[in-house]
Formats: sequence, C-alpha cells, structure tokens
Amino acid sequence: MLLHLKSLIEDTDTGAGRRFDLFTQIVIVISLLLFTIETLPELRDYEAFFGLAEYLIVTFFTIEYILRVLVTEHKIAYVLSFYGIIDLASVLPFYLTLGIIDLRFVRVFRLFRLLRIFKFTRYSRAWLRLKRAFLDVKTELILYTVLTLLLIYLASVGIYYFENEAQPDKFGSIIDSMWWAIATLTTVGYGDVFPITTGGRLFTFFILLVGLGFVSVPSALLASALSKEAEPTNEPD
Amino acid sequence: MLLHLKSLIEDTDTGAGRRFDLFTQIVIVISLLLFTIETLPELRDYEAFFGLAEYLIVTFFTIEYILRVLVTEHKIAYVLSFYGIIDLASVLPFYLTLGIIDLRFVRVFRLFRLLRIFKFTRYSRAWLRLKRAFLDVKTELILYTVLTLLLIYLASVGIYYFENEAQPDKFGSIIDSMWWAIATLTTVGYGDVFPITTGGRLFTFFILLVGLGFVSVPSALLASALSKEAEPTNEPD
Amino acid sequence: MLLHLKSLIEDTDTGAGRRFDLFTQIVIVISLLLFTIETLPELRDYEAFFGLAEYLIVTFFTIEYILRVLVTEHKIAYVLSFYGIIDLASVLPFYLTLGIIDLRFVRVFRLFRLLRIFKFTRYSRAWLRLKRAFLDVKTELILYTVLTLLLIYLASVGIYYFENEAQPDKFGSIIDSMWWAIATLTTVGYGDVFPITTGGRLFTFFILLVGLGFVSVPSALLASALSKEAEPTNEPD
Amino acid sequence: MLLHLKSLIEDTDTGAGRRFDLFTQIVIVISLLLFTIETLPELRDYEAFFGLAEYLIVTFFTIEYILRVLVTEHKIAYVLSFYGIIDLASVLPFYLTLGIIDLRFVRVFRLFRLLRIFKFTRYSRAWLRLKRAFLDVKTELILYTVLTLLLIYLASVGIYYFENEAQPDKFGSIIDSMWWAIATLTTVGYGDVFPITTGGRLFTFFILLVGLGFVSVPSALLASALSKEAEPTNEPD
Repeated sequence: MLLHLKSLIEDTDTGAGRRFDLFTQIVIVISLLLFTIETLPELRDYEAFFGLAEYLIVTFFTIEYILRVLVTEHKIAYVLSFYGIIDLASVLPFYLTLGIIDLRFVRVFRLFRLLRIFKFTRYSRAWLRLKRAFLDVKTELILYTVLTLLLIYLASVGIYYFENEAQPDKFGSIIDSMWWAIATLTTVGYGDVFPITTGGRLFTFFILLVGLGFVSVPSALLASALSKEAEPTNEPD
Repeated sequence: MLLHLKSLIEDTDTGAGRRFDLFTQIVIVISLLLFTIETLPELRDYEAFFGLAEYLIVTFFTIEYILRVLVTEHKIAYVLSFYGIIDLASVLPFYLTLGIIDLRFVRVFRLFRLLRIFKFTRYSRAWLRLKRAFLDVKTELILYTVLTLLLIYLASVGIYYFENEAQPDKFGSIIDSMWWAIATLTTVGYGDVFPITTGGRLFTFFILLVGLGFVSVPSALLASALSKEAEPTNEPD
Repeated sequence: MLLHLKSLIEDTDTGAGRRFDLFTQIVIVISLLLFTIETLPELRDYEAFFGLAEYLIVTFFTIEYILRVLVTEHKIAYVLSFYGIIDLASVLPFYLTLGIIDLRFVRVFRLFRLLRIFKFTRYSRAWLRLKRAFLDVKTELILYTVLTLLLIYLASVGIYYFENEAQPDKFGSIIDSMWWAIATLTTVGYGDVFPITTGGRLFTFFILLVGLGFVSVPSALLASALSKEAEPTNEPD
Repeated sequence: MLLHLKSLIEDTDTGAGRRFDLFTQIVIVISLLLFTIETLPELRDYEAFFGLAEYLIVTFFTIEYILRVLVTEHKIAYVLSFYGIIDLASVLPFYLTLGIIDLRFVRVFRLFRLLRIFKFTRYSRAWLRLKRAFLDVKTELILYTVLTLLLIYLASVGIYYFENEAQPDKFGSIIDSMWWAIATLTTVGYGDVFPITTGGRLFTFFILLVGLGFVSVPSALLASALSKEAEPTNEPD
C-alpha cells in the first residue's frame, strides 16, 4: 500500500501519478487565488469563508507533506531539499499562529506558499537548462550585482551633493537619494524624484551613460548562457 | 477562366498576381486608415461616409474571400488556416451586426481586420526565419513567461504588505498592487503608483534587482535564436 | 598647386592633411555650439554676433566645398555621395534664405549641419563594421520595425476601446491613443497618459508581455551582428 | 621585518595576508557607512563622533598607504597605478582641508573613497574577464557613445523646434531640451518634460524608433564579449 502511495506521489508518468500532481497543482492555484482575493476590501465580510478554505487547504497540504516524508527513501534529504522546505513552509505558518497573539505579522510567511508553484516545473528540462545557464554565469552575475550596487551608491552620493540644497525634502540624505538612484538606473523613472539643477542633470546623464551599459548586461549574459545550453550539442541527456 | 483567376489570386511572381496583391494591400491600408480616422471626435458628422466606405471595402473582401475558397485546391485547409480565419474574420463582423441591435460590442471584432496586414509578409523569408527562431526558443519563452507572471504576483503580494497601510487607496488589495508590479517590472514606471515607505522601497529595489535579470531575457533569447537562423549555414532553402 | 591642395584636403595621413582635417572639425564643433547657444533666451540680444559668426562659418564651408569639388577626380560621384550632399546642405540653407521672406522655416534645414560630424568617423574601421553589421540584419530590422508599428497600432486600437469612455480627453481617438502606445511599448512611460480601468490595465499588461519581447529584439540582433563582424576571422582588411 | 610586512600587505594567499585584507575591507565598508549616515539630517548633532571616526579611519589608511609604498619593489609604478592613486586619494582630501577655509567643496573629493571598494575584486578572475571583454569591444563602445551623444543632440534640436512655442518654459533652448532627450532615449521618462504637440510626439516616436536600436547595443555587445571571454577555450590561465 505504501508502494502504491509512493507511486502516486512521486511518479509523474503513471496515470494516477499525473492525476495526483494535477490535483495538487489545482489546490495550490486555488489557495493562491483565495489568498489574493482575501485582501480585497469588498470581501472583508467573508472572513469566515476564507478561514474555512484556508483550514481545508492546510489540512490537505499537511497530509501531502507527511505522505511525501513517509514514502521517500531519502527522508532527511527531502526535508532539507528546496521543495521539502517549501512544502513545510506552506503549512507551518498556519500552526504557528494558533498559539501566538499577534497574527498580522505571521501572515507575511504565507508569501512562501507562492513558491509551491515551482513544483509545476520540477521535472521540466527547460527548468534544468535555466538552472545550468544560471550556474554558468553565476560568477559574472555576482560581480555585476556588486558593481551595480556600487554604481547605485556612487549615483546616490553624487546626486545628494548636486540636489540636496535645491530639493532638501527629496534628496535629504544619501540614503534618501538611493531611491532616486534605483528608479533611475533601472530606467523605471516613476517621476516622484528627479534632479532640477543643471549639475544634477549632467550628473544623471553621465551616470546613465555608464550605468545602462552595466545594468542590462546580466540579463544579456544569462540569455547568452541559456542560448548555449539550449544547443543540441550541449544536451546529451 | 478559373485557372486565370487562380493565377491572379495565388501567384505572387506574375505581373497580374503582383498587381492584385498590391491592390488588396492598398485596400487593407485604406480600411485601416478609415477605421482609425473614424474615431476622431471631429469627424463624427461624417458617419455616413465611413459607413459607405466600410460597405464597399467589405464587399471587396467578401468577393476576394469567396474567390480564394473557389480557386484553392485544398479548400478546407485554407478555410481553417491562419490566413483563412483572418480573411473570414475581416468580413464576418459586418454581416453579424446586420440583425443585432447592440452594434457597439461587435465593433471590437474589427480589431482582427488589422491582422490582414500580415499577408504582406506571407511569403517573406525573414518571416519564416522569425517563425523558426520563435519555435526554437518556444519552451524557454513559455518558462520565462510563467516565471515573470510568478514574479509579478510575488511583487504584488510583497508591496501590498509594505504599502497597504501607508497608501490604502493605491495598494488596496493584492489585485490593485499588481498594476504597480506590471508598471515597475516592465520599467514603464508611469508614476501613478509607487512605494513611499522605506520597506516598500527596499522591496522594490530587491524585486527590480532580481526582476530585470528575468524580464529582458526572452527578447535576448529570441534575438539569439534569430541570429542563428539568419546564418548562411542554417538556410539551405 | 592644385595637387598640393588635393593632398591637403583629401589626405589624412600627411601632416598638413591632418591639420586641415582637425581645423575643419573644430569649425564644425564651433558652428554646432553656436547653433545651440543661439537658442538660449538669455543670449537673444547677441543676435548680431551669431549672425556674423554664421557668416564666417558658411564662408569657410563654401570655400571648402568648392575646393573639394575642384580637387576630386570623380566630381559627380562626390557631389552625389552622402558626404557631398551633407557638405552642400551645410551651406545651401544660408544662401537660400537671402532672397526668401520667411526665415524661420529654413532654419530647420540647419539640422543637417549636425551630420557633418559623421566625417569624423569617415575612415573608421568600426564605422565600417557597424555599417556591415547593419546590412547583415537589414531584413530582420525592417521586419521588426513593421511588426513594432503593427503592435503599436493594435495597442492603440485596444486601449481606445478600453479607456475612451473613462478618459475621453486622453484617449479621444485611436490617433490620440497612439501616444500612449508609443510611450508604453518603448517603456519610457512619461506618466501623462495611463489606463485607469481594469480592462485597460489588463490589456496594457498583455500588450507589454508580448511587446517587450519584440521591441528590444532589433538592438540585440544588431549587437549580435556587430559581435560577429568584430571577430578576427571576419576582418581580413 | 619589512619582508614580514610585505607578505602581510601584498599576499592574499597566506593566513595573515588574508586577515589583513579582510580587516582593510571592513574599515573601508565602515568608512562608507559613516560617510552615508553622516548626511542624515537626524544625525547632524553627532558631528563630533563622525569627525573622530573619520580621523581614526584616515590615520589607518595613511599608515596603510605608507607601508604599501615602503614594501613594494616598484614604488613609482604603484604610486602611479590605478590603485595607488585611489589609495592616496582616500586620505589626501582630509589633509588638504586642514588649512583651507571652505570645507564644503573638499568633501566632494570623498567620493573617490568609494572607489576603494574595487580593491575587493583586485585579484578576481571575473574582474579580469570583464576588463578583457571591455577592451575587446572598446572601439565599438566609443563609437556607440559618440553616436548616442549625436542622437541626443539631434533629438534635442528637433524637439526644440517642435515644442519651444507650445512649452517655452520646458523647452526654452536646445540645452534645456537635452534634459528631455536624455530622459527619453534612456527610457527613464520621469514625466517632468514631454511633448504635447502632434509634431513633437511624432518626432519623439521617430527618435525612439531609431534611438532604442542604438542605446541598448553597447550593453548587448559587452555581454557578448563577456560571454566569449567566459568560454573555457579562451581561458588558459
């Protein structure tokens, strides 16, 4: 019977295994939808319904988690694996809130529930290629992240000296100026903060000229690595 | 005579065939221009003229569609093909409105008329290369679209918790927060919604650091595939 | 003496030729600077000075142009070449304004004067590589430009139907809506127009999801072609 | 004893050398943090504390600099090297302010202190790859920077003619219009300046169509070069 369960939970190529996977995925999507809808101010009267749904979903995921631990051969490996931790994190916050008074803070942990969705792509080849491509350029990505952080800091310091006097409310300190640096170097440009002095504008131009050549390199690198991983010669498996 | 028509409609390398194609394309462009100008508030008095023009254009496209069905050897294949459906969709809404009272809604179907323009590139080699490049990276594109959707959801949930209290009108629910997530992760940044709390700003920075490396990967991948398809060795045809 | 002039004007590897080139380039930069400063409201009193400077610069360029025509062996080829037309366009507007009453309109032609600066890179290898890379991907670039224009049109039509009723002043017609489509699909997002209805926002999201994968492909393609052209094996010259 | 110091300062593979490097790096990070926090309006009362901390940090860096000069064999080479200049620039502003009255201006030099952080990656392989990739595409990057500057100038001139009359306060001169050109071509789009005339909007569209294909090419080129440098065959060291 345990062997039957094992096949049901772990296999993805048998009919029953597929149906179980599909069912789990539907429950995940429903739990995400409920979690999203719950925040709508119009639906705050239906709190009881959302509480009940959450109760049922957590029950299902708890049983699923216990079964997964039971049927797997490498129990500790599963529990400590990425998906093992996610599976546990999907249910643990619910139990942790039972005895605690401040419930608001714990709800933040529900964010992890979203990660359940990664199970969808667990066995996907494309996901593996993405992971391999990511590892291929890991060093450059870290270097680029550090350089981007440095550039954002440099930009924040520079704009502070140029704009602090003209706009003391928006560029009050280097830390305040960082918000501008982030919005500018990512080219989001909300428009809530922007330089108004000639010096600040020239500095912005200079920083963008240097910065844009930096900020978009990581994604181009990742795409290049992915493109290589996707080539037939690199894929004997 | 049918053979003559067949050559006129289907061939693109005979003089008459080219002239027919050119004429059809000009009619398409005119119909698009009329459709666009029709919405100008200044021209609402000329409704009768637009109605007449629409009548003539639909007549032409109807005759063209019937002829295309008549001359082709694989009638069902054409009717069910991408261009067959577009050709029919270009005229059908006009007839469907005749007996229906609510005309406003049906006008939306006219959007499909725009797709006629794809006929211009029907035989183009570059179009085929684009299609092949697209198929080459189809799996990664789907994976990336899913990951981008997940990231947008995660960003929406996160910003909701950070900004909901400070800006309940703009970040009223997770669904409302999604509009911010879309505008931010695509770097459009209209500036109608943006975080004002320190936590929300830090979260935005973190999400952008991760997100920008994701959102622009698909186009880089597609470009890389296109670049490979465009290489002489890959193009024996 | 003509031979001496020929060497002075056409050669770039003799001392005198280099000095002549440098002098010409400095005059170009000065003329650009004057053209820029002239528009400053604070300097409108110095009109006479700018008029005199313009007079001197045009005189120099006129003499230069005549000499270039005189010394070259392939006179007609030069006059009809890209640089020949630019050289003439740099001085012609000045003479054309002498007998014409409306001077404002003609000043627009001065824009072409800016193109003189391309002479700086006339013999540059990198410039040739860029030109070759551009030709390599010309077909795809044209296809992508057409597709981008179609997408912008489609986006304009769509947003018109979603937002016209809610914001008739900003999305008054399909033509008005195009301004939104351009600002959004290029991710500039000024924030002067943006959707406020749920339908319009969902449509924006969908258009961006499709559009971003399109709009940034041309530059990635060009970069890929440039990268290939820059490889040693492709550069025997 | 000098030999011992030499090993301590210059080596990164001995235990003592590593600990010295780590300590230096921590001091750099602390000095950056203090520099950042110092600008917070809330902490302006703690000026004495920041002054003392700065005094201690400069003392440490001064001793470090003197030791570096003493232990190295190629003294002049070090002093004139990139890191030699940065090391000196980290302490020099402090001493320069001692005798000068206007202290505000000198604080700007503290910006260079940030560059100390580059020492972290001094021996990193990825940093070398980045440097080599940068040199590989140096010519194209310079060409592209020049072309981008030209495009920004052209865009500024064009928008000035279109928008000057309609918005004389925002597009008062070509120089003022440059701010718009920078914000637009980098796709930041703060939203403080944007065209309102039909001509200006059409021009913006045209400039963006051409410009976006230019502005993002440098980063794609750099990524492509980096991708090549990261290949195993190119990395015999």
